[in-house]
Amino acid sequence: MNRVPLEKKVLSENDRIAAELRERFRENNVLVVNLISSPGSGKTSLLEKTLEALPRGERVAVLTGDIQTENDANRLKRFGFPAKQITTGGTCHLDARMIDRHLADWRLEELDLLFIENVGNLVCPSSYDLGEAAKIVLLSVTEGEDKPLKYPSIFFKSELLVITKTDLLPYVPFDINKAEENARKVHPGMEIVRVSSTAGNGLKEWLQWLEGKKKAVHEKAESLV
Amino acid sequence: MNRVPLEKKVLSENDRIAAELRERFRENNVLVVNLISSPGSGKTSLLEKTLEALPRGERVAVLTGDIQTENDANRLKRFGFPAKQITTGGTCHLDARMIDRHLADWRLEELDLLFIENVGNLVCPSSYDLGEAAKIVLLSVTEGEDKPLKYPSIFFKSELLVITKTDLLPYVPFDINKAEENARKVHPGMEIVRVSSTAGNGLKEWLQWLEGKKKAVHEKAESLV
Repeated sequence: MNRVPLEKKVLSENDRIAAELRERFRENNVLVVNLISSPGSGKTSLLEKTLEALPRGERVAVLTGDIQTENDANRLKRFGFPAKQITTGGTCHLDARMIDRHLADWRLEELDLLFIENVGNLVCPSSYDLGEAAKIVLLSVTEGEDKPLKYPSIFFKSELLVITKTDLLPYVPFDINKAEENARKVHPGMEIVRVSSTAGNGLKEWLQWLEGKKKAVHEKAESLV
Repeated sequence: MNRVPLEKKVLSENDRIAAELRERFRENNVLVVNLISSPGSGKTSLLEKTLEALPRGERVAVLTGDIQTENDANRLKRFGFPAKQITTGGTCHLDARMIDRHLADWRLEELDLLFIENVGNLVCPSSYDLGEAAKIVLLSVTEGEDKPLKYPSIFFKSELLVITKTDLLPYVPFDINKAEENARKVHPGMEIVRVSSTAGNGLKEWLQWLEGKKKAVHEKAESLV
């Protein structure tokens, strides 16, 4: 059975919509980041801490993907920023069309930063461009330092690695230097921040990274005027 | 674009091969279990502890799936039982044909127990029957107690839930009773064991569960003679 051509068609259709989204994000100076990890690596917790740290006036919104539930959007709405759930109904990743559809009633010109929290999965989301400026992969210290070698595609395609749950390092057999070495084997020069959402370590570096990216997007937009 | 018929065809072809495998496992009295979880939930660690606990004479083998590396088979071969890696080359689950192909040079009549360690993923493997007697889902205490609600398909289809890494319970905000309640919401009466592969807790219950299943398979085979 020949499955490849159909998958190619699905992906090229996705790429087309993603390119349109990217153009709209650029025109409106919105930094869009796509957060990807295994289930339970701490994407929602990191976003909670991030939203909590931002001043109320910040022009930030969140789209959060899940297969079935609305739990994550409910967790994120508490911080007073727009947050919307995308339930995929079985599909193991978000695609560009879902993003496009869920942005329909939001005004991009009123945003500076859009977080997309993908479905918990290290495989499927790596093939689907969502028009983001950067993919960000999260890896928790409870998962094992071999994961970048086992799931190289997503580590190669992500600009930043966030190592999460570092407060658990004393209790787990996780060699954080080895994990970083493995990530950089797959993706030389990969940027990395180490974060504990519960203890607060590294959140400053994470927010600085976001700030830097936001500036870069705005400067690029100005240079194009 | 109409994707459903092709997926249906792929799945029904898989079901056909899985049914043949199930028949062969039954004829040869082999208990086959299919272990499924997120990346890093501790499938390989649990198998290491299991193989370590078994007497050398046990007729046990392991097929372990991964997208890219041979790491897991190398970890498991140390215990002196046959172990073979299946690398899927990008696919996020094992399928029945892969199992069939990798069993070709093993004699099923020489086995009592075959572990299949699926690719680390809570979504894709749930649709693919491998001819197993039981699916087993693992959930680590670092992942959050909401996972059964977010990934209901695999919790519904699995006979047993193994809650792993219980040694980390004092350090994580994980309500183990709530997790079990969520699992039983999705799958009423689901069997559950709590295990720490590093501390050893619960390994006895896990081995007893396997032993009970093995007996059930053999008794069923005898009653059919």
